[in-house]
Amino acid sequence: MKILRVDMTHLTTKWEPVPAAYEHFGGRGLIAKILLEEVPPLCEPLGPDNKLILAPGLLGGTSLSSAGRLSVGGKSPLTGGVKEANAGGTAGIVLGRLGIKAIVVEGQPKDGGLYQLYVSPDKVELLPAAEWRGLGTYATAEAARARWGKDCTVVSIGPAGERRYAAASIACTGEGDQVSRQAARGGLGALMGSKGLKAVVLDGGNVGPVAVADPELFRTAARRFGQELWNSPKTGHKGSSHLYGTASIVGAVNEMGAFPTRNFREGSFEEAENLRGEHLREVTLARGGQVGTRCMPGCVIACCNVFVDESGKPIVGTLQYETIGLVGSNLGLGTLDEVAELNYICNDLGLDTIEIGAALGVAAEAGLAKFGDKDSFVALLQEVAKGTVVGRMIGQGAVVTGRVLGITRVPAVKGQAMPAYDPRALKGNGVTYATSPMGADHTAGNAFGSRATVNPLGIEGQRAESRKLQLGAAMLDYTGLCLFARPPVFADPQLMVDLINGRFGWGWTVQDLEQMNRTVLKLELEFNRRAGFTSADDRLPEYMLKEPLPPHNTVFDVPDSEVDGTLADL
Amino acid sequence: MKILRVDMTHLTTKWEPVPAAYEHFGGRGLIAKILLEEVPPLCEPLGPDNKLILAPGLLGGTSLSSAGRLSVGGKSPLTGGVKEANAGGTAGIVLGRLGIKAIVVEGQPKDGGLYQLYVSPDKVELLPAAEWRGLGTYATAEAARARWGKDCTVVSIGPAGERRYAAASIACTGEGDQVSRQAARGGLGALMGSKGLKAVVLDGGNVGPVAVADPELFRTAARRFGQELWNSPKTGHKGSSHLYGTASIVGAVNEMGAFPTRNFREGSFEEAENLRGEHLREVTLARGGQVGTRCMPGCVIACCNVFVDESGKPIVGTLQYETIGLVGSNLGLGTLDEVAELNYICNDLGLDTIEIGAALGVAAEAGLAKFGDKDSFVALLQEVAKGTVVGRMIGQGAVVTGRVLGITRVPAVKGQAMPAYDPRALKGNGVTYATSPMGADHTAGNAFGSRATVNPLGIEGQRAESRKLQLGAAMLDYTGLCLFARPPVFADPQLMVDLINGRFGWGWTVQDLEQMNRTVLKLELEFNRRAGFTSADDRLPEYMLKEPLPPHNTVFDVPDSEVDGTLADL
Repeated sequence: MKILRVDMTHLTTKWEPVPAAYEHFGGRGLIAKILLEEVPPLCEPLGPDNKLILAPGLLGGTSLSSAGRLSVGGKSPLTGGVKEANAGGTAGIVLGRLGIKAIVVEGQPKDGGLYQLYVSPDKVELLPAAEWRGLGTYATAEAARARWGKDCTVVSIGPAGERRYAAASIACTGEGDQVSRQAARGGLGALMGSKGLKAVVLDGGNVGPVAVADPELFRTAARRFGQELWNSPKTGHKGSSHLYGTASIVGAVNEMGAFPTRNFREGSFEEAENLRGEHLREVTLARGGQVGTRCMPGCVIACCNVFVDESGKPIVGTLQYETIGLVGSNLGLGTLDEVAELNYICNDLGLDTIEIGAALGVAAEAGLAKFGDKDSFVALLQEVAKGTVVGRMIGQGAVVTGRVLGITRVPAVKGQAMPAYDPRALKGNGVTYATSPMGADHTAGNAFGSRATVNPLGIEGQRAESRKLQLGAAMLDYTGLCLFARPPVFADPQLMVDLINGRFGWGWTVQDLEQMNRTVLKLELEFNRRAGFTSADDRLPEYMLKEPLPPHNTVFDVPDSEVDGTLADL
Repeated sequence: MKILRVDMTHLTTKWEPVPAAYEHFGGRGLIAKILLEEVPPLCEPLGPDNKLILAPGLLGGTSLSSAGRLSVGGKSPLTGGVKEANAGGTAGIVLGRLGIKAIVVEGQPKDGGLYQLYVSPDKVELLPAAEWRGLGTYATAEAARARWGKDCTVVSIGPAGERRYAAASIACTGEGDQVSRQAARGGLGALMGSKGLKAVVLDGGNVGPVAVADPELFRTAARRFGQELWNSPKTGHKGSSHLYGTASIVGAVNEMGAFPTRNFREGSFEEAENLRGEHLREVTLARGGQVGTRCMPGCVIACCNVFVDESGKPIVGTLQYETIGLVGSNLGLGTLDEVAELNYICNDLGLDTIEIGAALGVAAEAGLAKFGDKDSFVALLQEVAKGTVVGRMIGQGAVVTGRVLGITRVPAVKGQAMPAYDPRALKGNGVTYATSPMGADHTAGNAFGSRATVNPLGIEGQRAESRKLQLGAAMLDYTGLCLFARPPVFADPQLMVDLINGRFGWGWTVQDLEQMNRTVLKLELEFNRRAGFTSADDRLPEYMLKEPLPPHNTVFDVPDSEVDGTLADL
C-alpha cells in the first residue's frame, strides 16, 4: 500500500511508501497516528500546518460486507482537538482497492484558489476547480461525474466548507446516483475548504477487491461475518435496522425520555409517532420511495432509504435517526417532510445536521426562529447559504451561536453539539460525550444498545459500559466497519482477528487487537492533551447538571470522579 | 472591616466579618482568594455559581495618593478564567472609608429582574431598577445621583452588560461630574448583568479617611510616596504622564514599531502624529478642554484629560492610550475626534474599548467595515447598541467575531484581545500576554517601560522582565495603587511595607510583601488550572509567529520553553 501526499501550497502530489510506523494503522487509527506524528497540536485548524487525512479502514477494499467506510480526519476546526468522521458510499472501498492507505492533504494554496484532485489507477491530477465554486454537493458530484465519468466516487464540500464553517461536512457519493453520505462531524468540511480542495474524485477503474494475504482464512471469516449479520434479528433481512433504518429507534428513545425536544428542554416529543422508523417505512413505500437500500456495495444490512415527497420525488437518501432528532424534535418539527426538507438543504450546503440542528435550536431559544415553525428554520438556513453574519454564526455551530446570542443552554461538549440522546436520560452516553476525545459523538460509544443491562437513568455501570463501547467503536472505526455491523465482532473478537490476519497475515491475537483499540484512544487522548485539553473539557454543560429533564426529571449526575476514570490506564 | 454579601437569588444582603483567611488580601488578591475558595472553577461564568466581587485594595480609603482603585472580579465571561479589572474614580476610596473589604454578589434573580444596590454608612438597600433598563452608563449615573444624591459614587453597567456581552465593562464615577472610569477588561460587565445588577451606589456620607494602625509610620511613608511621585520627571507636575496622559507614549510605541495598525497588520501608523499625547494636549487646551485632571481625589499625578470637540463640548474624559491604539490606529483612524467619538459610544454602552477595537478590526478584515472609515465603525457600534446579531457578535469580542467571520488573524490570548502593543515588536509584552492568568492584559506586566534595558525585539531577558513586572503588577493591584504610581514602591519595596504596616500593623517584612505578590499569582494560576487552562493556553495566535510585522519585519519568536518558565516556581 501507499500514501498519497498532496501539497496544496506548491500544488504537487507525491506517492510515498507506507512508513513502518504507520503499517498497522488504518482509518481512524491512522488519522490519530498521523496527527500525533505530523501535526502541531496547537496549530490553527484552518491554517497551513493542519492536515486533512482521508483513509479507508484496514478492511477497506476487501469483499467484506459493511467494511468500506471512509475515515476523514484532522485537527477539528470545531473542537480544536483530534477528529475523525466517517461515511459510507464507495470512497473507502475504492481507496482500499487502489491500495491507497491514506491521502494526506497538506499546506494551503497561496492564491486562495479552489482545486480538485483526481486519482485513478493510472494517474493523479491536481487541477483547478474554480468553476465549481459555490456549487452544492449535489451539483458538485454531478459536475465531477460529468467530467470524470459516471462511475467515479466524489468526495466534496459544499458552500459551507468553502466558507470554512465549523459545522461543514464532507459529502461522499455512493453506488448509482447516491450523493450524500456525509462525514459530518467536527467541521472537517471547513478543513477541506481551508486546503482549497473542492473535491477528491476517485476512479477505481476496473480494479477489483484487494488481494488478501490468506484467502482461505479471510474468506471463511468474511462468510461467517456476513451470515451472522444476515441471520441476526436486528441486522438481518427481517431485522429492525434493515426494515426501519437508523430511525427504528425513534420510538424507544422517545419512550425512554432521551429524545431531544425543543433545544433539549424535554426528553419526549408529543409528535414522535410521526417520526418513527415504522412510519418512515410506511410513508416511503406508499409514495414510491425506497427502503432497505445500501450505502455501501455488498452490505447485507441495507439500512438506508430514499425518502420521497408526496409526488414521489426523491428528497434525501438516507433519512437518518440523528437528523430526525436534531432537525426534527429538537426544533419542535413533527413531520418527516419537514425534516427531509431541512436535511436536503444541509446535505447540499455540506453541513452536519447534528451541529446545525443544535445551532438552530439555540437560535430558536434566543428568539431567532420559532420551535415548530419550519419556515423560520429554512429562513435561517438561507442565511447560512448566503453567508450573512447570521448565517455564518449558525454555520459555526451551536457553541458559537450560543456565545453570540448569550445563550448558555447549549448542548455541546468540547465545542461539538450532542447527537440525539439527551444524556440526562441516557447517562452512559453522557459519559461518552464527556470523555470521548472526539467531543459529543454518539458513534464514539453509544450506550443506547446497553439499556437492557445498564439502567440508563442510573449511575452504576455507566463508566465501564462507556469504556467498553469506546474501545469497540475505535476498532470499528480503524477497520472501516459500520457501527451496525458490530454484533459479530463484538461477540467474538477472534472473528475480527481472523479478518485482519486474513487480509494482512500479521498473525495478530485477540490481545493484539485489543491493544490496538487502546492504542488508538491513547493516541487521540495524547493529541488532545498536547492541544491543551484537560479533565475540565470532559464535562457536560452546566445546565444538564442542574435542569431536570422531563419526563423523568433527572439531571446528569454521574460524579466527575466516575467520569474521569472512564479512559484511565488504557 | 467587613464583607457585604448580596444574594441576588433571594434578594437579600448580609454583613459578614472578614474571615481570618481573607484578612491579608485586598483588591485583586482578595478576588483571587475568594474565587478559589468559593467559586467552582468550571462553573458557567454567566450562571448562578459565579460571583461578582468588588474590592478596594489594601490601601483603599486611606489618604495615600493614587491608591483608591476599585478592583472588580469574577470568573471571566470572556476568558473563562480568573479575572480582575480595576478602575479609578471614587468607588475604591469610598468602600475603603466605609470599612468594606469586599462586596460579593452571588446567585441570580429568578425573575430576570434588574436591581440596584445602595450602600451608605447607615443602610444597605437592594431595590428594583427596572426603570433604568437600557440606560447608558452616563444616564444611569445621572439617574442614580438624582435619586441618591449628587455626591454618590455609581458603579454601573450599560446596555452591553445587560445584554451580557463578553466585552462589557463596568463604569465607575469619580469626582464632580466624572462618569466613565471603566473596569473594562474580561467582560465583568456581563457578569454584573447576569446578576441582574444595574448599579451599585456608594454613599460615603461624611466619613473621612480610614483610621490607620500606626499613624506616624503611615504618614511618613505616605508623604515620602507623594513627594517622590511629585518630584519624578515622569509622574510629577512637569512629567510626561501629567502633561500628556497615557497618550504620552503614542510617539514612542509608534517609533518602536509596536503600534497596532489596521488589525495588527502593521506596527506603525502613518497618521500617528495626530494621535500623540502632545497633540492631544495642544488640541484640548486650544478648544477649552482640560488636561492634567485627576481620576481619583488627591492623586498627585493627575494624568487625565477632558477631551472636547471643536465647539468645546466635552466628549470623553479621559481619552487614553489604549483606546487611541485600538479604536484609532487599529481601525486606520487618524484623528482624535474620530477616536473620541467611538470612545464615547463604548463608554456609554459600557464596553471595553480594547476588546471592541480589536473586534472591529477583525470585522473590518472580514469586510464588514472599512479601515479608515469611521462611519463604518460607528454603524457597527449602532448594531451593538441595538442588539442585532451582528451587534451581538461584535459585543462578544474579537475571538467570537473571528470565529463567526472565519478570520484567524485575531489578536487575542485566552479569549481576550490584546492592548495596544504588538508583541512582535515588544516581545516582553508578548510573554506577559501569553502567561498572565488574565489573558492579554497590558496592566498585568507592561514591558514598554523596560525598553532601555531589555531590547524589545530580542528574546533575551524577556522572561525575567515579564515575571518581575507581573509580580509588581499584582502588588499594585492588591494594594489599589495606580500603575503610574509604581516607581517609588518598585524602587523601594520597604516603602510599600511601611504603608501596609502603617495601615494595618501587621509587621510585614519585604519578604512578606514579595510572598504575597507570588501568592496572588499562584492563586490565580491555580484557579485557571482548575478551570482547565494549560500551557497550551499560554500561546500567542499562530499568525504572530509566522507573519512578520512591518516595519521591523519581526515575528514573535520567544521559544515556548522560555515562555513556559515565566511564572514557574512562584
